Amino acid sequence: MNAADAARFITHGSAVGMSGFTGSGYPKAVPQALAAKIEAEHAAGNPFKVSMWTGASTGPELDGALAKADGIDFRLPYNSDPIAREKINKGEMNYFDMHLSQVAPMAWQGFLGPLDTAVVEVTGIREDGSLIPSSSVGNNKTWLDRAEKVILEVNSWQNEALEGMHDIYYGTALPPNRVPIPLCRADERIGEKTLRCNPKKIVAIVETDAPDRNAPFSPPDDKARAIAGHILEFLGHEVKMGRLPASLLPIQSGVGNIANAVLTGLVESPFESMTAYTEVIQDGMLDLLDEGKLRMASATAFSLSPEAAERINRHMHRYRGKMILRPQEISNHPELIRRLGCIAMNGLIEADIYGAVNSTHVMGSRIQNGIGGSGDFARNAYISIFMTPSTAKGGAISAIVPQASHVDHINQDVQVIVTEQGLADLRGLSPKERAKVIIANCAHPEYRPLLEDYFARAQKQSYGLQSPSILSEALSWHQRFVETGSMMP
Amino acid sequence: MNAADAARFITHGSAVGMSGFTGSGYPKAVPQALAAKIEAEHAAGNPFKVSMWTGASTGPELDGALAKADGIDFRLPYNSDPIAREKINKGEMNYFDMHLSQVAPMAWQGFLGPLDTAVVEVTGIREDGSLIPSSSVGNNKTWLDRAEKVILEVNSWQNEALEGMHDIYYGTALPPNRVPIPLCRADERIGEKTLRCNPKKIVAIVETDAPDRNAPFSPPDDKARAIAGHILEFLGHEVKMGRLPASLLPIQSGVGNIANAVLTGLVESPFESMTAYTEVIQDGMLDLLDEGKLRMASATAFSLSPEAAERINRHMHRYRGKMILRPQEISNHPELIRRLGCIAMNGLIEADIYGAVNSTHVMGSRIQNGIGGSGDFARNAYISIFMTPSTAKGGAISAIVPQASHVDHINQDVQVIVTEQGLADLRGLSPKERAKVIIANCAHPEYRPLLEDYFARAQKQSYGLQSPSILSEALSWHQRFVETGSMMP
Repeated sequence: MNAADAARFITHGSAVGMSGFTGSGYPKAVPQALAAKIEAEHAAGNPFKVSMWTGASTGPELDGALAKADGIDFRLPYNSDPIAREKINKGEMNYFDMHLSQVAPMAWQGFLGPLDTAVVEVTGIREDGSLIPSSSVGNNKTWLDRAEKVILEVNSWQNEALEGMHDIYYGTALPPNRVPIPLCRADERIGEKTLRCNPKKIVAIVETDAPDRNAPFSPPDDKARAIAGHILEFLGHEVKMGRLPASLLPIQSGVGNIANAVLTGLVESPFESMTAYTEVIQDGMLDLLDEGKLRMASATAFSLSPEAAERINRHMHRYRGKMILRPQEISNHPELIRRLGCIAMNGLIEADIYGAVNSTHVMGSRIQNGIGGSGDFARNAYISIFMTPSTAKGGAISAIVPQASHVDHINQDVQVIVTEQGLADLRGLSPKERAKVIIANCAHPEYRPLLEDYFARAQKQSYGLQSPSILSEALSWHQRFVETGSMMP
Repeated sequence: MNAADAARFITHGSAVGMSGFTGSGYPKAVPQALAAKIEAEHAAGNPFKVSMWTGASTGPELDGALAKADGIDFRLPYNSDPIAREKINKGEMNYFDMHLSQVAPMAWQGFLGPLDTAVVEVTGIREDGSLIPSSSVGNNKTWLDRAEKVILEVNSWQNEALEGMHDIYYGTALPPNRVPIPLCRADERIGEKTLRCNPKKIVAIVETDAPDRNAPFSPPDDKARAIAGHILEFLGHEVKMGRLPASLLPIQSGVGNIANAVLTGLVESPFESMTAYTEVIQDGMLDLLDEGKLRMASATAFSLSPEAAERINRHMHRYRGKMILRPQEISNHPELIRRLGCIAMNGLIEADIYGAVNSTHVMGSRIQNGIGGSGDFARNAYISIFMTPSTAKGGAISAIVPQASHVDHINQDVQVIVTEQGLADLRGLSPKERAKVIIANCAHPEYRPLLEDYFARAQKQSYGLQSPSILSEALSWHQRFVETGSMMP
C-alpha cells in the first residue's frame, strides 16, 4: 500500500506507537504521509492530533514532520527533534519523559491508555509471518502486541544481514506472573530472532528505501579528551584496588560526543575483553570491536554517524556476531543492570554541589531531550558516573551550581562526577564532604570561588546543616542567566 | 563477657556495623558501654569517634547514647534518633542517607571502606554455631561476613519462637557472578533460617535481657482516615478497571501513623488474600493477619508499638507461619520489587506541583530521617503512591509547594499523590497536566489559590514551558517559613 493510504488508518485523537530509537529504525514514509494528511485536515478547519509513543528519539521524517504539522498532542518518552522541542517549550505540545525501561510495562499495565495503531519499520517479513527487526528494537514488541491495528514499513535500505542479530524476549508478564529474566551476561541470548505479529492486525504494509538519519559525531575536543582521561584513570585505579575486574564490567554509555570520546579513549586503554550493556551502539564501539577490546555490545539500537552506518553495513558479517539488539525494556531493565553490574556513564546539564544531577531541564523549565535511560542505569549501576564540560555557552553557564534547578538523579544515584577539570569520587561521602570535592575537583576556576563562597556562607546561615543552602540564592545563578545571559555576576 | 569488656574491641576511628532496623533487633548493651568508654576518653582529652553503619534507625540505647557521647563521626544509612538528628543538623555529625537496598552491595563492592567490627543482636546461638536472628535482619548478614571482629549480643527478651521465621539468602555475589534471585512471590523462602558466622571472628558474646523500643503509633486521626479512604477507593477502582487483581499486589508500606492508618483501613476493605512485601511489619499488619485479609507479610524487621510487640510475643505460634524476615538487600531489592509488582505507599515532606517529592530535608537543608527504602520501592513499584496531610505545623507549612526544596523522588517515580483533600492520579500526564491535578486535588484550600496564581504566572514568564517556573519565587515559600514561621504570606 502507499503511505498516504496507510496513513488513513490513523485518526484524530488516536494513540500511535511508532518504532524508532535515536535516529534508527523509525518509519520513514507513513509519518510524513500522516503529517500531510494532518496539514490538509487543519487547512480544512478540522482538528487532528495524535498521541505519539516511540522507543526514544526518532528522525526528522517522524518527530520533525509531525511537530511541524502541529499534529502531536502528547508525546512520550524521549525527544531530541528541534521542532518538537520548540513546540514543547512553547507549551504547545504535552510531553512526558519517562524512564525508558518503564514504557513497555506501564503500557501493559494499562497506565497509558489504549494503543490504537502501531507503525513499525522492519527489515523484512518472513514466510511464517514473523518480522525481521530493523536497526532499532525499542518498544516494537509491545506496540505490535498492544495495538489494535498494525502498519508495517519494510525498508529495503536496511541490511538483510541484520537478521539474526536481534534477541526478542517474550518472557515478560504482568504481576503476579513475572519471573526472573534469565540473563546473566551481556553476551547471552534469551529470546527469539524475530518479532511476532498477529497477521489479522496488519492493515497496511508499505515499502520504503530510505536511510536512517543520525547526527554525525563531532571529533573529541580537548575537553572531551580530558574527561575521558579522568575516567580511564579512575577505572584503572579501581581495577588496581580490586574493586573492578581487569576486563571491567559491562559498559553503559549515554549518547553524545563526550560519551563517544570515552569509548574512543578505551581503545588505547589496558582493558581487554570488555562487554557493553547499553542503550545504543555508537561509533566509538565499532572501534573497540575492531580492535578486539570489546567482545560484545548489547543494546536496543544503533546510533551511528553516517560514516559509521556505512562502515557497519559494509562489514556486517564481521560485526553481527558481536552485537545483540534487544527490546528497550530488557536493555534498560533494572533487574539486569543491577545483576550485570553496569558501569554507567551519562551526561548531565548541571550538577549541584551535593551531587544531585539535572539531565533534562535548562534553567529548570526548558526541556532539552528527556531523562531517557539515564535513570534506569544510574540507580542500578555498579557505579554511576556523570560527565560534562564544566561550563557551557562559552563560560556563561556553570555546570556546577549551588542547587540544581531540576533534579533527575538524586545524589544517592551519583557516585562520580567528571568534568575536564577533574573527577569527584563521591562514594561514601556525606553531603558537605561531597560539596568540598565537587567544588574543588569539578568546578571551572572562574566559578569555583563563587561556589566556595556560597558553600561557606550557607554553612553559617542555613536552616539545617545536613545540606546547607541559602534559599534566596540557591537558584539565583539561573535567574541571573535568564536576565543577563550569564551566570557570572 | 560483660559489655564494657566487649566494647574495648572497638577503637577510635574504626567502622562499626551494628544490627538494628527501626526500633528492633539493635544491640542494647555494647553501644551504651561504648558510649561510656567514649565519654571517659573524651574526659581524658583523647579523641574517640567511630563510623556507625546499621540497617536503618535503631533505639535510644544505640544512636541516642552514642550521639550524646559525641562518639559518631559518620553515620549511615538512616537515622530517626532525635539527638543524632540534632547533631547532624548542627553540622557536628556526617550523615549519608543511602538507599537501603544498596548498603550491602556497596559494602561488598568496597565502596564504603573496610568494616572493623560487627555488633549484632541475636535470639540465640545454635550448637552448630549458626545464629538465630533477632527481631530485625537488616544488614546483619553483610556485617557478619565483612567485619574483621564480631561481637554478639544474645538477648533473652527476644522470643525463642522467632527461630524459623527468617529467610537468609546466601546467593548474592559480586558481578560478574550475580545470578537471578529466585523469588517470585512474597510468601516464598529462598534461604536459610539462621545466620552464618565464622566462629574465629567472634571476640565477645554478651548476654542481655532488654526489650526492643519502638515508638507507639498514634491512633489514626481524621486526616489519616481521609487519606486512607482515598487510597482504598483508588485501589478499588483499579481492581474494577482490571488494572489490579482482586487480591491486589504485594503491599509496601512506609513507617508511620498514616501508613498504619492505611493498613488499618484495609481491614474493612473488600480485598482478600493479600500479601505484603515491605520493609517493616507494623501494628496494622497484625490486624490484617488476624482478620485473615493478609496471607503473608514479608519484611526485614518488626516495627511494632509496645502493645503490638507484646501481642505478637504472646501469640507467636499464630503469627510465625505468616511472616518472613529477610535481609534488607532482599526485602528492598529492585529486581524483586519490580518482579512482584509492589504497591508502594510512602510518606513525604513536600511535593511540588510537578510531582517531585522531598522525603528527607525540611526547608531543603535540615534532614528529618533519611531516604530509607522509599527510593527502592517508588522507582520499581507497579504503582508508587505518596501520601501526606496537605499542611503541617498547624497550617504554617504547605505540603504542596511551587518547587521542592530538595528532591528524593523524581516525578517519573510518583504516580499518585494523596492528601486528606484528595488524590491526584498522575499516570501518563505531562508536567503541566500534573500541576493542574495536584493543585486541584491535593493542595489545602488555604494554599490552593496561591499555587494556582504561581502556576498561572509561571506559564507566562517561564524560561521554558515544559515545567514552568519562576526562579525568583520557586523557593520563596520556604524562605518565608524560615523568616516568619509560616509559608502563608
